Amino acid sequence: MSLIDFEARLCRLNSPTALPLAAGYLWNKRMMIHMNARGYATAQFMQPEPSKYARAQILEQKHFMLPEQGTYAHHPGRFFYLKDRDSGDLRSAPYEPVRSAWDRFAFEAKPESIGWVLEQNGLRLELELSLPVDEAVELWELRLINGEAPRRLSLYPAFPLGLMSWMSQSAAYDPGLNAIVGDCVTPYQKVADYFKNKDLKDKVFLLSEQTPVAFETRQRPFEGEGGLHHPDALIADRLANGISRYENPIAALQFDHDLSPGETVTHRFLFGPAFDHAEIQRVKDTWLSAEGFERARTEYAAYMAQGRGSINIDFGDNHLTYFVNTWLPRQVYYHGDTNRLTTDPQTRNFLQDALGNVYVRPESSRATLLKALSQQHANGSMPDGITLYDGAELKYINQVPHTDHCVWLPMLLEAYLDETGDYAVLDETVTDQETGQSKTVRDRVSWAMQWLIEKVDQRGLSFIEQGDWNDPMNMVGWKGKGVSGWLTIATAYGLKLWAQILTRDGRDPTLFEAAIEQFRDAANTHLWDGDWYGRGITDDGVIFGVKADGEGRIYLNPQSFALMAGLAGNGKKTLMIKAIEEQLETPYGVEMIAPAYTHMREDVGRLTQKFPGVAENGSVYNHAAAFYIYSLYQVGEGDKAFELLRKMLVGPDEADYLRRGQMPVFVPNYYRGAHRQFPDASGRSSHLFNTGTASWIYRSVIEGLFGLKGCREGLRISPQLPSQWPQARITRCFRGAVFDIDIRSHDTAAKTTVTCPTATVDGDLVSGFEAGKTYKIEVVTPRR
Amino acid sequence: MSLIDFEARLCRLNSPTALPLAAGYLWNKRMMIHMNARGYATAQFMQPEPSKYARAQILEQKHFMLPEQGTYAHHPGRFFYLKDRDSGDLRSAPYEPVRSAWDRFAFEAKPESIGWVLEQNGLRLELELSLPVDEAVELWELRLINGEAPRRLSLYPAFPLGLMSWMSQSAAYDPGLNAIVGDCVTPYQKVADYFKNKDLKDKVFLLSEQTPVAFETRQRPFEGEGGLHHPDALIADRLANGISRYENPIAALQFDHDLSPGETVTHRFLFGPAFDHAEIQRVKDTWLSAEGFERARTEYAAYMAQGRGSINIDFGDNHLTYFVNTWLPRQVYYHGDTNRLTTDPQTRNFLQDALGNVYVRPESSRATLLKALSQQHANGSMPDGITLYDGAELKYINQVPHTDHCVWLPMLLEAYLDETGDYAVLDETVTDQETGQSKTVRDRVSWAMQWLIEKVDQRGLSFIEQGDWNDPMNMVGWKGKGVSGWLTIATAYGLKLWAQILTRDGRDPTLFEAAIEQFRDAANTHLWDGDWYGRGITDDGVIFGVKADGEGRIYLNPQSFALMAGLAGNGKKTLMIKAIEEQLETPYGVEMIAPAYTHMREDVGRLTQKFPGVAENGSVYNHAAAFYIYSLYQVGEGDKAFELLRKMLVGPDEADYLRRGQMPVFVPNYYRGAHRQFPDASGRSSHLFNTGTASWIYRSVIEGLFGLKGCREGLRISPQLPSQWPQARITRCFRGAVFDIDIRSHDTAAKTTVTCPTATVDGDLVSGFEAGKTYKIEVVTPRR
Repeated sequence: MSLIDFEARLCRLNSPTALPLAAGYLWNKRMMIHMNARGYATAQFMQPEPSKYARAQILEQKHFMLPEQGTYAHHPGRFFYLKDRDSGDLRSAPYEPVRSAWDRFAFEAKPESIGWVLEQNGLRLELELSLPVDEAVELWELRLINGEAPRRLSLYPAFPLGLMSWMSQSAAYDPGLNAIVGDCVTPYQKVADYFKNKDLKDKVFLLSEQTPVAFETRQRPFEGEGGLHHPDALIADRLANGISRYENPIAALQFDHDLSPGETVTHRFLFGPAFDHAEIQRVKDTWLSAEGFERARTEYAAYMAQGRGSINIDFGDNHLTYFVNTWLPRQVYYHGDTNRLTTDPQTRNFLQDALGNVYVRPESSRATLLKALSQQHANGSMPDGITLYDGAELKYINQVPHTDHCVWLPMLLEAYLDETGDYAVLDETVTDQETGQSKTVRDRVSWAMQWLIEKVDQRGLSFIEQGDWNDPMNMVGWKGKGVSGWLTIATAYGLKLWAQILTRDGRDPTLFEAAIEQFRDAANTHLWDGDWYGRGITDDGVIFGVKADGEGRIYLNPQSFALMAGLAGNGKKTLMIKAIEEQLETPYGVEMIAPAYTHMREDVGRLTQKFPGVAENGSVYNHAAAFYIYSLYQVGEGDKAFELLRKMLVGPDEADYLRRGQMPVFVPNYYRGAHRQFPDASGRSSHLFNTGTASWIYRSVIEGLFGLKGCREGLRISPQLPSQWPQARITRCFRGAVFDIDIRSHDTAAKTTVTCPTATVDGDLVSGFEAGKTYKIEVVTPRR
Repeated sequence: MSLIDFEARLCRLNSPTALPLAAGYLWNKRMMIHMNARGYATAQFMQPEPSKYARAQILEQKHFMLPEQGTYAHHPGRFFYLKDRDSGDLRSAPYEPVRSAWDRFAFEAKPESIGWVLEQNGLRLELELSLPVDEAVELWELRLINGEAPRRLSLYPAFPLGLMSWMSQSAAYDPGLNAIVGDCVTPYQKVADYFKNKDLKDKVFLLSEQTPVAFETRQRPFEGEGGLHHPDALIADRLANGISRYENPIAALQFDHDLSPGETVTHRFLFGPAFDHAEIQRVKDTWLSAEGFERARTEYAAYMAQGRGSINIDFGDNHLTYFVNTWLPRQVYYHGDTNRLTTDPQTRNFLQDALGNVYVRPESSRATLLKALSQQHANGSMPDGITLYDGAELKYINQVPHTDHCVWLPMLLEAYLDETGDYAVLDETVTDQETGQSKTVRDRVSWAMQWLIEKVDQRGLSFIEQGDWNDPMNMVGWKGKGVSGWLTIATAYGLKLWAQILTRDGRDPTLFEAAIEQFRDAANTHLWDGDWYGRGITDDGVIFGVKADGEGRIYLNPQSFALMAGLAGNGKKTLMIKAIEEQLETPYGVEMIAPAYTHMREDVGRLTQKFPGVAENGSVYNHAAAFYIYSLYQVGEGDKAFELLRKMLVGPDEADYLRRGQMPVFVPNYYRGAHRQFPDASGRSSHLFNTGTASWIYRSVIEGLFGLKGCREGLRISPQLPSQWPQARITRCFRGAVFDIDIRSHDTAAKTTVTCPTATVDGDLVSGFEAGKTYKIEVVTPRR
């Protein structure tokens, strides 16, 4: 049996140990949970800042999501111990903490739920986690299905609550609620913080539908010397009904079942945070029943359906098919709908997440654009992060000045306008918070582009300050002189897009067209290094990302954007692609930098302190790889693009997946790189699903691979199928219409021809269609 | 066999499970380590801020030391696995993580080292941790002593290094050093922080004297599915020589020993932080040898000898004797010499730690006084914390304004002057950082007292702002109106002491004497509640800590200081002591507040959000209990004082100790209280050894119980032996002389008589003695 199965809209892992960090993720309007196949969980809810209701055993630092985070013995989890009262067999579902093998183990990540099917010695255990749409609560359903022999079981859900607070923490069983309720006070020292914290949900509950025979809320006595993997408390017939007072609590319940042959019992539990008893009662009344669970499922399915995405294909490869049809748009939807569960998304992420979302929920992308512009600074620049509520603060990297945020505005707009044709958005007026001025979207974007035009040195190169898209390049220009090669090129691209949009909108683009040439010339004069573009020039005038460098010799991004911007002629294009092949390509995709830095370079900065091959320092950073793939489609290099796309989304085979530790339900932000320096760990997944990759790769599939790109007039069709594909069938949703498209490639075709009997076709342009209708389109394209 | 033994200068625990949090602590000029009997460790070193070299598996929040902190399966530890290659028996010394029972287990905390003696099946394992005086490095010596049968063993020291950094972390074996070296980069995001972090010791090493046969540095493969309690890596004959690259490292070495009957092998290891390879080499050359370990022991013993304290007694009770002779002065010394390993000690703690240190290292107390006064504000007040180095910042509670810091100056000075007679300190000039003005110590303290005199409301009561000695009473006066009853009384006491000092110094105390009466009158008019003094009056004019209150009805501190200040006549004294007996005394000492708050009182603040019976909310807060004990000696209530002293330091019996979880090598900052509300957990130790208790209780023993108090003219002797004691023998070191004192109490004695043939005796005053000489003194005192 394969260890990973791909079925329609389901990814199944058949061993808990094959992929120790395998996990699915669910989210709703209030929370996110990253549920590990082994039973460990990382969950947070927004109030409005991210908060936890099940915590570590020590005070964990608040931090951004870290890559390659492991689990550990006392990691928060959702554990269901199962004791056979006759044989004494003790095990835990799904796997942790007892780690007993099951005859059958299946971990099933679906878009709407995460579940397990476990079997042992004729007993089947089905476990499923789902969420409602608009409540921070986990819905757990557990079913015991007995085989042919009677058996006497004790079942113990045991959810550690961790160190809740140093001020106050406790937990007890509430018989009225039929719940274990943990309570604490979010710690504070300053008076002002008391008032801030007053309304926080400091309680946590484990509600049970069935009444337990006993409970335990004190983690230390629960574990005893046996440890969480063999708790002392489970040796006794009954849990001790202990009340936790200022000690790390656990929510453990005991249910005894004498099962007849074939008998099935079903448990339902709710686990989540609450403000008070009344809220727990309300949550219980709303959800804790078969009907409540069913309603939650139905509503959640409808919520997920809103994120279905705009294409449906059959690649003839289950993994790639389900990835592109299901998991990729789901990831795009997640980003766009949750803002990565932060209250101050980085401006560039906020805009790019919206860029992907134009294919999923374009109305949400529109709102993002207006929200972002409402925080434009008085000088036309964009802030480092967008605060999503009054009182939200810029945190972490958003406190460090970066110069690239404006450049993403025309990229989002291009995608949005092409997909929706909603040029009216350009006339929307937006009042900004800083000056109170009202301006149209068009004027604001022009203003932002004007800021970029002016923010250059005497050579015409864009200042970098403490960073650009590559956050941790924080010392290149901190003295105010250093410039970004990438940003210079990306600005040329942004200006090109903006001039196009203005032209299509009947406005005068002259000003911006003139500037494009200046940026192109500056880049070609100062940054072209013979075979590729350099990455920047430091405060002290040292160009880097060039042949002379032993480490950080070539950076991917300047090349990708040069291709998009049309900066380089065919000669340069060929040289760049060759240099990338030789220096950056690996079996797992394209690295962002090579060779990775192994030592600090004080004129480049934090980047070079990062571990080689990890994150931005030489990994297969998929966001950058996605730019490159998109740019390859832009310049007609479809075969190379697809090869890299496939490496990113699928990889060579299952064995490779297992080695790299990636559960294929999302594209991670990076795979480890430094392939030529540290080949052993190369390809390993970061396990982080927050990444701009999803947007650009979804766009590359839709607009590049299948060439189904909108424009003001309609839908243009110019696919770049890989040369080995004779055919493809796609369903594309576009402006409310559905297009069933059959693409065939023929050796004899001289050019792409599009046929649609029920719509207007002019060359590659399809128009004259109506929302709500379905159109059959046939495309014949020359074999590449 | 008893589970806890008391031998001279040693506290021995004979079971790893009897006291799960039992630990000893060692410190030197650079670091502190809290070493748990089971093998878990909490260590930090100063560079100059507190830093770690062995970390948790996740990013731990930086925080002040938390009470009742538990350990957990992946808690940092120093583990030595031992595998019998013939029988397959796998165990770990001292106990974690395998948790196998030993035939014999002894955990031995000595002032100079922490060790274990373990025996199993004829094999003896001796393990000892010591520190050098002025280097952040752990010295581990491990001895295997074989019995009569030959045996083949594999020994594996395995120290988890934890999540070192999200930027960069790695570990590998360095054959040149014969060490595992872990490396990381302290994470930062802002450019400025790079320069701050540049000189940090980001490396960690485990140096071995013997050469290992194999190693492992990757924690995940080391553990495998077996877990840290049964690591997969130990099943194989050899560790896999794995190199950790951007994954949580472990420093594991393997040594194979074929032991003949009676054979002994000795291992030495060094574990600690370092800046670079050269530093590791230097540390190795300096310490990693039998001679180096011996030199470290000798030097460390000399360092500890400086903290011997100034009395030696025999209570006829091993525990109390060794506690008072050894552990209590050691704790005082630790506080005074390390400033609790913070760089911004709270001013009141800084001064009180110095107060205890006058009996141990008075020159250090003098330096503390001058340091503190150099940070006096321009208005005469003292800051909330004293920064110990340039660039140190006030953190945590020190960012919240408190009004009591000045009041501790005369208390420190009284103790210092009485012990040393060094009145010259009053003429020392101190330049303060804020104004650059130079003033004498005398003028600065007068200025501080003047600030206290003026910082009162129209009733003459002292403003409290966001707190006083009781930190978390942060909402009583945050609007600027609320007053502290305790501070009003304590100011009267401080003024009394200051007026006395001025008088003894031949200065005019009139100004301060007049103020004393004002504060006494204000307290007696507005705060006396019929049987005790109230604690304060809120911003809205509500008096609290009075009979009308259901919770927080009586606070201990106002009563203690009223006794010290002579505020209350004998009538009030009797009423207060009775009220305290009835409402605050418990089998484990005196609670600070009763009943503990179970709900938030918004006009009192954070205190009332703390868990009932924990920390300042109704626990037996030993610092407050020590004030009360000291005050009882002040007013001649020696029997009651000793009863409470004994409860604090010893408790009723060993069973009680085990139940309460306290390893008797320090007095913890609190025992759980709320005895009448939650009797089950009452008495449980906080396990925190940072506390002003040590100073006041050491002072109470010296000056109260034995009545051996200095004064300008010499040593006064007026003991208050408990009525059941017929006799006591004490050695008292005082101003360089040694006094061998024999105290006898007689029913027939009418008053205390002091006899010393070689010194001048005038009533209770001994004078005319010389440093370096020993004096025999006989004291006869009436039986109480």
